[in-house]
Amino acid sequence: MSEQIVAIGLEGIVVAETDLSLVDGINGHLVYRNHWARDLAINHTFEEVAHLLWFGHLPSAEECKALEDKLAAQRELPAHVKAAIDAIPADVDMMSVLRSAVSLLGESGHSWPPTIDQVISVTAKMPTIVAYRFARLTGKQPIEPNPALKHTANYLYMLQGKEPVAAHVRALDAYLILTQEHGMNASTFAARVVSSTRSDLISAITAAIGALKGPLHGGAPSEVTEMVEAIGTKENAEPWLRHKLENGERLMGFGHRVYKTIDPRATALRVVASQLSADDPWFDLATHIEKVALELLDEYKPGRKLHTNVEFFAAAVMRAVGLKDEMFTPTFAISRVVGWSAHVLEQAANNRIIRPQSNYTGSMPE
Amino acid sequence: MSEQIVAIGLEGIVVAETDLSLVDGINGHLVYRNHWARDLAINHTFEEVAHLLWFGHLPSAEECKALEDKLAAQRELPAHVKAAIDAIPADVDMMSVLRSAVSLLGESGHSWPPTIDQVISVTAKMPTIVAYRFARLTGKQPIEPNPALKHTANYLYMLQGKEPVAAHVRALDAYLILTQEHGMNASTFAARVVSSTRSDLISAITAAIGALKGPLHGGAPSEVTEMVEAIGTKENAEPWLRHKLENGERLMGFGHRVYKTIDPRATALRVVASQLSADDPWFDLATHIEKVALELLDEYKPGRKLHTNVEFFAAAVMRAVGLKDEMFTPTFAISRVVGWSAHVLEQAANNRIIRPQSNYTGSMPE
Repeated sequence: MSEQIVAIGLEGIVVAETDLSLVDGINGHLVYRNHWARDLAINHTFEEVAHLLWFGHLPSAEECKALEDKLAAQRELPAHVKAAIDAIPADVDMMSVLRSAVSLLGESGHSWPPTIDQVISVTAKMPTIVAYRFARLTGKQPIEPNPALKHTANYLYMLQGKEPVAAHVRALDAYLILTQEHGMNASTFAARVVSSTRSDLISAITAAIGALKGPLHGGAPSEVTEMVEAIGTKENAEPWLRHKLENGERLMGFGHRVYKTIDPRATALRVVASQLSADDPWFDLATHIEKVALELLDEYKPGRKLHTNVEFFAAAVMRAVGLKDEMFTPTFAISRVVGWSAHVLEQAANNRIIRPQSNYTGSMPE
Repeated sequence: MSEQIVAIGLEGIVVAETDLSLVDGINGHLVYRNHWARDLAINHTFEEVAHLLWFGHLPSAEECKALEDKLAAQRELPAHVKAAIDAIPADVDMMSVLRSAVSLLGESGHSWPPTIDQVISVTAKMPTIVAYRFARLTGKQPIEPNPALKHTANYLYMLQGKEPVAAHVRALDAYLILTQEHGMNASTFAARVVSSTRSDLISAITAAIGALKGPLHGGAPSEVTEMVEAIGTKENAEPWLRHKLENGERLMGFGHRVYKTIDPRATALRVVASQLSADDPWFDLATHIEKVALELLDEYKPGRKLHTNVEFFAAAVMRAVGLKDEMFTPTFAISRVVGWSAHVLEQAANNRIIRPQSNYTGSMPE
């Protein structure tokens, strides 16, 4: 056997060369194909950044319109997917429903290699799946997609039953852009492993949804809102947070496995959220908690470089635009499908099966 | 950043220590937890070997009966899974149906860590899914699982509508045992990546089915039967195979990425298949083709060590017990779920998120 390297967890192992993104946790850089993700989030739309990731460049006005139209035309769910969603017991969580409904989008013609049309189709349909299920769960008639609205606006429209205000669309768009892509995380890697066997796009996206469902990856975003609500008042922030730190507990929304400086997504979302929520008492409390938490983290864990992460401001944006906690991870999936599918397309362009090894630690038979 | 290792495809990278199996391609060894897989296939049942992989030892008579009973009690599909299968368009392939139906088994209580009861439940239900869909596609009334039959016999019974003969059960049991587990292949790895985020068992198994669906992994087993049928007669074997080799084409059923000597699974299946098919003209032709192909491979590709692989005799067994080509990969999934779930249980016992890196090959923004 040739040389073996043992790397449980694969930390530090480069499994792909990618044009899609750079995640530089030391310098706090997030780049999507030669653009700062932060700038993209503030100056561009969901569709424009998806175009960048899928096609390699920001679109012209005509290219953008063409992509918007294609996405809008693909939002309707096939009848059998609706029937299946209707039949899933009410207590099954939204991520499981999303995984099953996306899997059901598999068609006989969807073999390898993946195509951009397949990518557009699944990206267009994921918001409809979530909104359709949400309506059914709350006893409402599901709202048909509105082709006059762009991707993000239509998602809010389907969830809330009325056309969203521009500021909400802008804020959610920024969040969705900032979470479209993030290097070789576990869900993206799962998608590439599945795709590397020359399986179809839907198999890869289904696997990625399953990986994102895990709290070590998709997170538990409700923990931030629960913390803010448990603290309740500005006066209570310092004693509450100090008590946690005295007990050696983690503070939700601070620190990141990769980012050892300010998470660039948090920076961009802070800008967006502050524009949106200047007068909102919840946001006012949240930013106060952030300030106190950073001071206390510096006091209790000096040198640990714990900064506000994307989840903290994601919670603020989600709450401001009216999305409930249980929508956080599904909404994350709705944006990350852009990156998953871009990676699957990139993998297919130069495919090699991903097949590591394991070390047998048992005994040999006689 | 600490040292980086670039390993596209992860060849030679050990991602897990495992007690489950040793795949030694140089020496042609396949070991399941201290037992030769070959001996297990010849001397034990599906349930006994599943017990070995899940619990760590071959069962006592009582333990075996208990596992058989638990599996038999879990075969029925929930109504919503049947409804969803019924609604899937008829032209959707069986692996996509299996992926969706397994995903739909996800329950609200199925969070991390995975449990042995969840493992038994999904293993018990996968044959029912395939048989249910097969019946629907062929316009027949699906046959209810028969709790008096063991796992393999019940699968054949549900597919064929009559109690299978003992020789068929024995042969298929051997095939299923030999494919239950095979180290860190792409589907098993996908299951471990998904599970490493603390996602649920169903998400992991759904991902694995999607990976196995890819022809680089699940194979294209119909290619062996197509070859045998294209050759048609013993006389035609040599000119047909020689023509392929002269044109630089691969022969289906020979050579394996890992095994550089005789595939131990092929050895065991040859024994089983020959007992079963001694008088079968198709099997007689297939073994003649094998003999001629090995001679010609030695002539055309000396030193390449191309041996008969498991797919060659898998095709023989499948055909002998009456399973159609399109059932080959789904039947592979029905056995491999034992290994997938054993790996998920092992991963959960000592979990660490699997998150490699990628190298950004694009430019930096200004």
